[in-house]
Amino acid sequence: MKAYLTRRYMFSASHRLHSDRLSHKENAETFGKCNNPYGHGHNYFLEVTVSGAVDSTTGMICHLVDVDNCVHKVLERFDHQNLNALPEFVSNVPSTENVCILIYEVLQRQFHAAHLEKVRIEETMMNSFEYAGDAELKH
Amino acid sequence: MKAYLTRRYMFSASHRLHSDRLSHKENAETFGKCNNPYGHGHNYFLEVTVSGAVDSTTGMICHLVDVDNCVHKVLERFDHQNLNALPEFVSNVPSTENVCILIYEVLQRQFHAAHLEKVRIEETMMNSFEYAGDAELKH
Amino acid sequence: MKAYLTRRYMFSASHRLHSDRLSHKENAETFGKCNNPYGHGHNYFLEVTVSGAVDSTTGMICHLVDVDNCVHKVLERFDHQNLNALPEFVSNVPSTENVCILIYEVLQRQFHAAHLEKVRIEETMMNSFEYAGDAELKH
Amino acid sequence: MKAYLTRRYMFSASHRLHSDRLSHKENAETFGKCNNPYGHGHNYFLEVTVSGAVDSTTGMICHLVDVDNCVHKVLERFDHQNLNALPEFVSNVPSTENVCILIYEVLQRQFHAAHLEKVRIEETMMNSFEYAGDAELKH
Amino acid sequence: MKAYLTRRYMFSASHRLHSDRLSHKENAETFGKCNNPYGHGHNYFLEVTVSGAVDSTTGMICHLVDVDNCVHKVLERFDHQNLNALPEFVSNVPSTENVCILIYEVLQRQFHAAHLEKVRIEETMMNSFEYAGDAELKH
Amino acid sequence: MKAYLTRRYMFSASHRLHSDRLSHKENAETFGKCNNPYGHGHNYFLEVTVSGAVDSTTGMICHLVDVDNCVHKVLERFDHQNLNALPEFVSNVPSTENVCILIYEVLQRQFHAAHLEKVRIEETMMNSFEYAGDAELKH
Repeated sequence: MKAYLTRRYMFSASHRLHSDRLSHKENAETFGKCNNPYGHGHNYFLEVTVSGAVDSTTGMICHLVDVDNCVHKVLERFDHQNLNALPEFVSNVPSTENVCILIYEVLQRQFHAAHLEKVRIEETMMNSFEYAGDAELKH
Repeated sequence: MKAYLTRRYMFSASHRLHSDRLSHKENAETFGKCNNPYGHGHNYFLEVTVSGAVDSTTGMICHLVDVDNCVHKVLERFDHQNLNALPEFVSNVPSTENVCILIYEVLQRQFHAAHLEKVRIEETMMNSFEYAGDAELKH
Repeated sequence: MKAYLTRRYMFSASHRLHSDRLSHKENAETFGKCNNPYGHGHNYFLEVTVSGAVDSTTGMICHLVDVDNCVHKVLERFDHQNLNALPEFVSNVPSTENVCILIYEVLQRQFHAAHLEKVRIEETMMNSFEYAGDAELKH
Repeated sequence: MKAYLTRRYMFSASHRLHSDRLSHKENAETFGKCNNPYGHGHNYFLEVTVSGAVDSTTGMICHLVDVDNCVHKVLERFDHQNLNALPEFVSNVPSTENVCILIYEVLQRQFHAAHLEKVRIEETMMNSFEYAGDAELKH
Repeated sequence: MKAYLTRRYMFSASHRLHSDRLSHKENAETFGKCNNPYGHGHNYFLEVTVSGAVDSTTGMICHLVDVDNCVHKVLERFDHQNLNALPEFVSNVPSTENVCILIYEVLQRQFHAAHLEKVRIEETMMNSFEYAGDAELKH
Repeated sequence: MKAYLTRRYMFSASHRLHSDRLSHKENAETFGKCNNPYGHGHNYFLEVTVSGAVDSTTGMICHLVDVDNCVHKVLERFDHQNLNALPEFVSNVPSTENVCILIYEVLQRQFHAAHLEKVRIEETMMNSFEYAGDAELKH
């Protein structure tokens, strides 16, 4: 019988929504204010959900420190940075959807202490995004 | 592979929980303080979750403005109003469950820019309600 | 040397902003959507701040239960009610400014276990009001 | 067609993470600061999600008072207590995972006014845990 | 007898903390990660507090719309922008202290519907800044 | 002209409210559930407010790192601990009032990078305490 653990992290970054594959006009129409050339920024909340059986001796799904080590390695490259300046976003728009997918895929490869369920990012208190790979969230 | 977007909205309204099909005594027992004849009110948070593939050019599930246009049309009729005074609630109790279902059904008919997953309303910080039509939330 | 205690309470109520001393047109211009005849509502957060020396034996400014008893007596008349239906607001607009002043004045008369500093009400997460009687908040 | 109701509760308690089946050194390595012999504590938020059809007369999934009665009976034994001092945690670590499972199982046996979906506990604003019995959350 | 109104606004922006009057090394030491050349960003909460007598007819300190008009004019230049790109911050570091002072001074000149008490900005949920001109906050 | 900086910290701890100078019965009456012999706990938010002129070169009141260093030294002794087990609370009730005063006094002696204005602790979302030494908060 599985239980679920969700761990929350904060980071602050800037981004500009802009695609090289779109014309100036299309970029402006698609991204509106988010396309301004100087960028803008957010305080992001990242939530990582993992699942597993609860160990009968420790009462834990996994060690928080194992989740933290894995996530901190990602976030120290993102926190207080401009996301457009990262190699991952040279040809990929640093939309929060894409940041979500990227973090899911890194954790999918690197975190093995429990089953990765989902990555969720709150961009502002009005917008959030979730990604769970192949899994269909029902939700 | 799908990603999920949740957008949050606020509105303030009043309501009275009362059913014409119940006696005075049954109304009082069923709804308690929420049945007082003059009504009471809340600051509601509405959350709309939609899903879809992330476009490889724009990095987006859909345009926020498309979700907003659709939701604002509903909310401008609800915000700073008494829900019992709306035609939808003449013979239907304006419980938050019913407000949730109503908004889901309006969006289901009118929003086509992505797949509508779920409508969630926070009535107070202690109560929230969700509705996803036929879909079984697993949750 | 004084310390300060702030205690938080929640109540849900409806109100209509409308003054009998104003014409229909003036009411509409002054109160906008808040003047609609059926009212609307909020989840209010009430904060009461009191001060006093910290007792060297108990480590306390005063007993929380003394603040609570006094505030609950007020709030049980307001919670899940329409504020316009209360005798206090027959000839006085139930604006949150006036609700604030009213609660301050009741506590001023009835609470004597510590010094009443201030009453603050959050009407929505975007609006709050404070009242401290004669005291100039510097703030 | 089902709707979902989530009700939120708060309680404050202390706990020490420690297993009699582990050596002193293993306890220290497994639980870190959470293993200090004097314990530490949290303000927990408990969320209980139930589901059911919305009654066409009352507009409700179930009476909040039925959920509350059942949950309050559990929480009055936990609130302002040391969880390690409860009989349930004599031979079971009072980790938040285990508190979650325990509350789910009590509600599973005692709450019959709607279908119990899930129990979620926020231990701090950075950690939360969920349990849904046999159900696979897709999540 | 005065009452106080605080109105809250949100905006998202990026900034880089960097002073032309400091050497490369001094900038790095003074601002740390906040000095990275590509900038980073935040969701800012701005709170504006004003005070005045409560009008006996309207029950209000002033019209919210008057505060809003004045603040929106400032924020539409800041929201979804890079603060370093604004003329105000060509030779002035766009620290949140300075953003606070700037907004206070604009409102001081342009808002006359009530007495301006204070401007407060939350940069993250861990940092906030306040400015009240000559007034000594006691606080 | 002064500006104000407030920095927020979190720590989790347990305490028991109990005074050796009171009888068993007096302790029970004074502290209620908070007197249970096994203790209980909280997630505390600590806010430290400091003030000073904004430096015209750096745009800062003081370096956050200077506030953090000073506060972290205090909190590493409190976080994930039982406050009653600390030497400071052997003969002093670890009420949040007293924790507030203690932290203020430590910072008063050790923090000199700006003027210490106030220490505020949120014990739960319903209770908070403030202390400002000799200063009269007007508030």
